[in-house]
Amino acid sequence: MNFCSDCGSKVSLQAVAGDNRQRFVCDGCGMTHYQNPNVLVATYVCVGESMLWIKRGTAPAAGKWAIPGGYMENDETPESGASRELLEETGIDVPAHEMLLVSVSSILHMAQTHLVFRCHLEHRPDTVQTEEAVECAWFEEHDLPWEELAFASIEPHVRQVYQWLRKGNYGIRVGFIDENGSQYRNFPLAGATSTGQRNV
Amino acid sequence: MNFCSDCGSKVSLQAVAGDNRQRFVCDGCGMTHYQNPNVLVATYVCVGESMLWIKRGTAPAAGKWAIPGGYMENDETPESGASRELLEETGIDVPAHEMLLVSVSSILHMAQTHLVFRCHLEHRPDTVQTEEAVECAWFEEHDLPWEELAFASIEPHVRQVYQWLRKGNYGIRVGFIDENGSQYRNFPLAGATSTGQRNV
Repeated sequence: MNFCSDCGSKVSLQAVAGDNRQRFVCDGCGMTHYQNPNVLVATYVCVGESMLWIKRGTAPAAGKWAIPGGYMENDETPESGASRELLEETGIDVPAHEMLLVSVSSILHMAQTHLVFRCHLEHRPDTVQTEEAVECAWFEEHDLPWEELAFASIEPHVRQVYQWLRKGNYGIRVGFIDENGSQYRNFPLAGATSTGQRNV
Repeated sequence: MNFCSDCGSKVSLQAVAGDNRQRFVCDGCGMTHYQNPNVLVATYVCVGESMLWIKRGTAPAAGKWAIPGGYMENDETPESGASRELLEETGIDVPAHEMLLVSVSSILHMAQTHLVFRCHLEHRPDTVQTEEAVECAWFEEHDLPWEELAFASIEPHVRQVYQWLRKGNYGIRVGFIDENGSQYRNFPLAGATSTGQRNV
């Protein structure tokens, strides 16, 4: 950050009263510009013991496998953002209220927080090819090409969700990744919670 | 947003290739400036059937009661942000790993997502008076001054957490507030989950 987005003057890192870290403050109008983590939303689309994977068409990790997702927008809930990203990338229309929270995690060195959902469909829906998802495929745990994951750091999450899927009961996974590795805790949910199952 | 934070040129709202909404794009360097929701983190500090409330010292809602919290910073997890805010506002030091997720909610018209935690202490710890929290008090559900809540919209969450606290089992509450009201779902957790209880 070099300039004030409000008045266009130069900004500089300054101590701010009542704050314990330096902020970008405008030398002209005095506005303080805070920088905060971004939220990414993504979805595990589950049918039986398989889940939907997309082959990424864009950087980073183009040509590798990921689950559909992207940045949440200002006018969205995490669930409606996950629903929009899924529709945009794959053509699959799952309404926000069928998105069930499955993980809350942070990537500290990228200042990202990821809110990830699962949804459960009875049959594999048709998919479309898009710029962001040049291919869609359904993989069970044993046939997922693990060495071609776009983001290797998600492997423990993915294995956990496959395990929950086979058992038919779920949890919510909470944790983080930093430069030293990752730490997670599971909050097991009571009862069978693959609610919202429906035909597409 | 009027000016590019990178080069200081004027920005204008423009259609962006591969995007379905207008973005602020720099007329000089061409940088696209995305605007995304901010994450707030907060904590219900629980001792027995009582919870910690702070009388806010700063706007908005100065003089009214809230739970300690604030914006998450770039180098934080939600839990470490909640822990920092609690310490800054009240002097109570609860480490991040004792923060247990209790709600994920969005305030759509403010482009905020709130990640809220609970923690459980055996005894009421000492508190300090700060600019942000001019008073700390412990209230059970029946003696909380409900008409003096800083943010009336949190009442249903608060009542739910008090109820969980009395029963000794918990859930994670997921939902949103928009201009038409609010919608929430509870994900009940398996078993007694007031883990992390400790002395201060």
